[in-house]
Amino acid sequence: MNKIEHIGIAVKNLDDANTLFSKLFAKPHYKIETVETEGVKTSFFKVGKNKIELLEATKPNSPIAKFIEKKGEGIHHIAFDVDNIEAEIKRLKKEGFTVLNDVPKLGADNKKVAFLHPKSTSGVLIELCETIKD
Amino acid sequence: MNKIEHIGIAVKNLDDANTLFSKLFAKPHYKIETVETEGVKTSFFKVGKNKIELLEATKPNSPIAKFIEKKGEGIHHIAFDVDNIEAEIKRLKKEGFTVLNDVPKLGADNKKVAFLHPKSTSGVLIELCETIKD
Repeated sequence: MNKIEHIGIAVKNLDDANTLFSKLFAKPHYKIETVETEGVKTSFFKVGKNKIELLEATKPNSPIAKFIEKKGEGIHHIAFDVDNIEAEIKRLKKEGFTVLNDVPKLGADNKKVAFLHPKSTSGVLIELCETIKD
Repeated sequence: MNKIEHIGIAVKNLDDANTLFSKLFAKPHYKIETVETEGVKTSFFKVGKNKIELLEATKPNSPIAKFIEKKGEGIHHIAFDVDNIEAEIKRLKKEGFTVLNDVPKLGADNKKVAFLHPKSTSGVLIELCETIKD
């Protein structure tokens, strides 16, 4: 794993959160992206070589809506950048982690992604992501 | 803010978590440090230029023990590296954030630290930290 690619934060209202986090980082978000299949609208901020991804649910049954209902707004997941996601999935399954996606799926920001179940990682939802080369 | 300095993860048992995260990152923690005043024992892993800090409570009334009691194990805070913590505290207070430490306190890993109240940051406990120059 090369670095923290981003931290995902579940928010109730993306416009309000964009205003708040632009004050925090003293600069605006640089991108808005909707991932229909995940029921989520996202915005991204850069902090050095790391990113912060704000996540707003676009429908009531999306994972982000359920997360907020259960735990309130806050940190939703950590994403680690990897070179070869298929190899990491294989390695981590062998190490006993519960990988939620045997085959990586398409995520926001031009990435192949896979998640590890928080039950196998001290309560932390971990995303692996590999940037798709054009 | 320069980068994500570290992500703090609250764990019940530091030894077990060290074993788990060393499998995740395919390398061991590089440091153990106890901060008596915070009632916490920490271990650190490096992931690129970022760190993961695991936090175990050393007494029942420590903030980490209370966090786990309320929310279970999981991500506790995000720490951002800053050049001048006093200036950042002043700027963020002016922007309307609730800063929990008007004067920075001494944290783990040779840092001056201050926290922002999650109520003013979409439920995210944010730590500012500045490395103390020797």
